[in-house]
Amino acid sequence: MSTSNIQIIPISQSKIDTVDFNNLVFGTVFTDYMFECDYKDGKWQTPVIKPYGEISMAPSARVFHYGQAVFEGMKAYKDENDDVFLFRPDENFKRINKSSARLAIPEFPENYFFDGLKQLLNLDKDWIKKGIGNSMYIRPFVIATQPAISASPANEYKFMIILSPAQAYYAGEVRVVFAEQYSRAADGGVGFAKAAGNYAAQFYPTKLAHEQGFQQIIWTDANSHEYLEEAGTMNIFFRVGDTLLTAPNNDRILDGITRKSLIQLAEDNNIKVEIRRVTVAEIKEAARKGELKEIFGSGTATVVNPIIGFSHGGESFDLPKIENSYALFFKEKLMNIQYNISEDPHGWRLKI
Amino acid sequence: MSTSNIQIIPISQSKIDTVDFNNLVFGTVFTDYMFECDYKDGKWQTPVIKPYGEISMAPSARVFHYGQAVFEGMKAYKDENDDVFLFRPDENFKRINKSSARLAIPEFPENYFFDGLKQLLNLDKDWIKKGIGNSMYIRPFVIATQPAISASPANEYKFMIILSPAQAYYAGEVRVVFAEQYSRAADGGVGFAKAAGNYAAQFYPTKLAHEQGFQQIIWTDANSHEYLEEAGTMNIFFRVGDTLLTAPNNDRILDGITRKSLIQLAEDNNIKVEIRRVTVAEIKEAARKGELKEIFGSGTATVVNPIIGFSHGGESFDLPKIENSYALFFKEKLMNIQYNISEDPHGWRLKI
Ligand SMILES: Cc1ncc(COP(=O)(O)O)c(C=O)c1O
Ligand SMILES: Cc1ncc(COP(=O)(O)O)c(C=O)c1O
Repeated sequence: MSTSNIQIIPISQSKIDTVDFNNLVFGTVFTDYMFECDYKDGKWQTPVIKPYGEISMAPSARVFHYGQAVFEGMKAYKDENDDVFLFRPDENFKRINKSSARLAIPEFPENYFFDGLKQLLNLDKDWIKKGIGNSMYIRPFVIATQPAISASPANEYKFMIILSPAQAYYAGEVRVVFAEQYSRAADGGVGFAKAAGNYAAQFYPTKLAHEQGFQQIIWTDANSHEYLEEAGTMNIFFRVGDTLLTAPNNDRILDGITRKSLIQLAEDNNIKVEIRRVTVAEIKEAARKGELKEIFGSGTATVVNPIIGFSHGGESFDLPKIENSYALFFKEKLMNIQYNISEDPHGWRLKI
Repeated sequence: MSTSNIQIIPISQSKIDTVDFNNLVFGTVFTDYMFECDYKDGKWQTPVIKPYGEISMAPSARVFHYGQAVFEGMKAYKDENDDVFLFRPDENFKRINKSSARLAIPEFPENYFFDGLKQLLNLDKDWIKKGIGNSMYIRPFVIATQPAISASPANEYKFMIILSPAQAYYAGEVRVVFAEQYSRAADGGVGFAKAAGNYAAQFYPTKLAHEQGFQQIIWTDANSHEYLEEAGTMNIFFRVGDTLLTAPNNDRILDGITRKSLIQLAEDNNIKVEIRRVTVAEIKEAARKGELKEIFGSGTATVVNPIIGFSHGGESFDLPKIENSYALFFKEKLMNIQYNISEDPHGWRLKI
C-alpha cells in the first residue's frame, strides 16, 4: 500500500548488461536507480527515484565539515520463485531514526522509507540474483547538505537509498586483536549510532592491526580496555563451553539486528546465551583452559563470521577446529530464513 | 616562492558587488575562487584554483558514509596598508596532517598548501576588509571521494580551501554547562583531531543545552566527568585568583593554536598558567569562595570568548564582573599581533 507520492524519472537504458555478476567487488557496482529525498523548509519534500548518478553539492555543505551523516546497511534476497524479501527492515528503519536523533538530524517518515525501498527494489529487481549468497546490499543514508560552515545542526538534508548487488562474502581466515590502546566510542558518545564518523575513526587503528597480521580489531571499553565490546561492523559472540557470551547493548555498541536474531535463534534452539559484560581476562583464561570453543562476529554483510584466533598483550591464541560449530549452525538457520527456504516463526521476512 | 604548479581557471565576473559586508552571517558567503586538489593513483595531483561552485560526487563517495574527512580553521587579516597576514599558518598545516594521519588520509604536501593559500588569498584579496574584527575565514578540508562503500580507507580524496569573509563575532553573553552525561571524545579516540565526525556528535547534546539556556557545553572526560576538558570549538581557561588553569593536551583535546598563543602571552606578561587536569570540584569550590574570577574560551573564530556563568549538578554560578580581565587583555594583545598593529616577538605573522 503506497501512501506516499514518489516521483519516478526513468532511465533511458539499463546498464545491467555491463555488469559481471560473478565478479562483484563489494560496494562498487550500483544499480540503475537511486532514491532521493530532500529536507528543507522544515520538512521532507516529495521523494524521487531517478537514474543512479552523481550528486552535486556546495563545498560548504555541512556533511563535508562536520560529519553530520548516518546510514544503514540491509539486504534483499531472492528465492527460487523470484520473490524478493527483506530481513527485519522495520529494525533498520527504527535504527536509522535513532541514529539521526543522536546526530540532530530530522527523522525520516516511515511511509517514504518503505515505499521508497519497495519501488526502488521493484525497478531494479533484475539486479537481484538468485542463489544462496547472492543478495542486494541496500544502503540508506542521510547527509547534511546545508551550504554553511557553522558548527551546528543543518537545516537541509538529503536522504538517499542506493543499491549494490553483492555475492557471498568470504572473509578468509579471520584473526583479531583485542584493542589495548585505541578505542571506538566513548561513554555518552555516539557509538550506538550508525554515525558516519564512527567508521573513519577506526580506519587507522585497523590499518595498524592489518600490518600486524590481524584482519579486525575487537574493541574494548575506552576506560579500562578490560571489557570486550564489538568489532568494526560486527557484534561479537564468544562460546565458552556450550554457553554463548555477548556484551549487552549500551551507548557505545551498535544494537545489531543479526545479533538480536542470533540471540533469538539460540533461545529457540536451547542454546544458552549470557548477555553480560565479557572480560578480556576471562576469555584468555577460557582459551588457556581449552574452554573457549568459538568466537564469531554477526552482521548484515557477512551474516556470521567465524574468527580463528586472537591476540592480546603480546599473547596469541588459536581456536580449535570444532565439529558442531554454533557459528555455522546459526549462519545456515538465518540464511534459510532470509532466502525463504525455511519457516519464519518470528515474522522476520518482508516480501516485496 | 612558488614551488608548485597551480593551474588557475579565471572567473568571468566577480560576485563581490552582490555582498553586503556589513551583514555577513558567519560561514554563508564565499569568495570568487576555491582551491582544489585531488588524490588518486597514489598521489596528490596538480592543484587547481577555480571559480567557487558546486562539486559533484558519486553518492557512494566514502565521505558520505564513513565520515572520512578532516578540516582546519584559520583567518587572514588586513592591516591599514592593505597588507594581508596569516596567523601561525604553519601550525594549521601541521595539524591538518596530524588529523589526516589519524583518519588514515594521506598527508598533504607543504608547498601545495602554502602556495595554494597565497595564490587564493591574492586572487580574492578585495574580499578581505580592513578594520579590527573583519577577517577572512579560511577553511581547508579533505574528504574521501572514492565511490565505493566498503568501510576502509579510501584511495581517492579531495583537498579544498574555501574562503568566507567574516565580521567580528559577538557571541553574546555566554553561559555554559559542564557535561555530566554526554561526552565528546574517548581515550584512544579521535578527539585531538579536527575529524568531521567529532562535531556532529556534539550537535544533539548542545541542542539540549540550548534548550536549558546554555550557549555551550564544557566537555568533561568521558570516564568520570570529573575533569574539565574543552568546549565544542574552543579550549578553556579558568582564572582562579590570579592564576590561569587549562587542561593539558591529550588524545581527547584539540591542541588549539589560540590556546598555545595565550599560554605564551601569559608567560610574556608574567601571568601564571598551570597546565594540568582541572576538576569540576575545584572550580565549583573556587566559585563558592569567590576565587573564581574568569572563565574564557580560546579559538580562531572568536579569539577569546568570556563566559559569564556555568552550571553543574543542578547548581548555577555567576561570575563576578571584573576590572582587569585577562580575557580582554589577551584578546587585545592577540588581535594587535594579528592585525599588524603591535610587534610580533614570536614571529607568528606571515605576510602574504
Ligand atoms: C559497528 C557495528 N556493529 C555491528 C554491526 C552489525 O549490525 P547488523 O547485524 O544490524 O548488521 C554493524 C553493521 O551494521 C556495525 O556497523
Ligand atoms: C574542538 C576544538 N577545540 C579548540 C579549538 C580552538 O583551536 P584554535 O585555537 O586552533 O582555533 C577548536 C577550533 O579550531 C576546536 O574545533
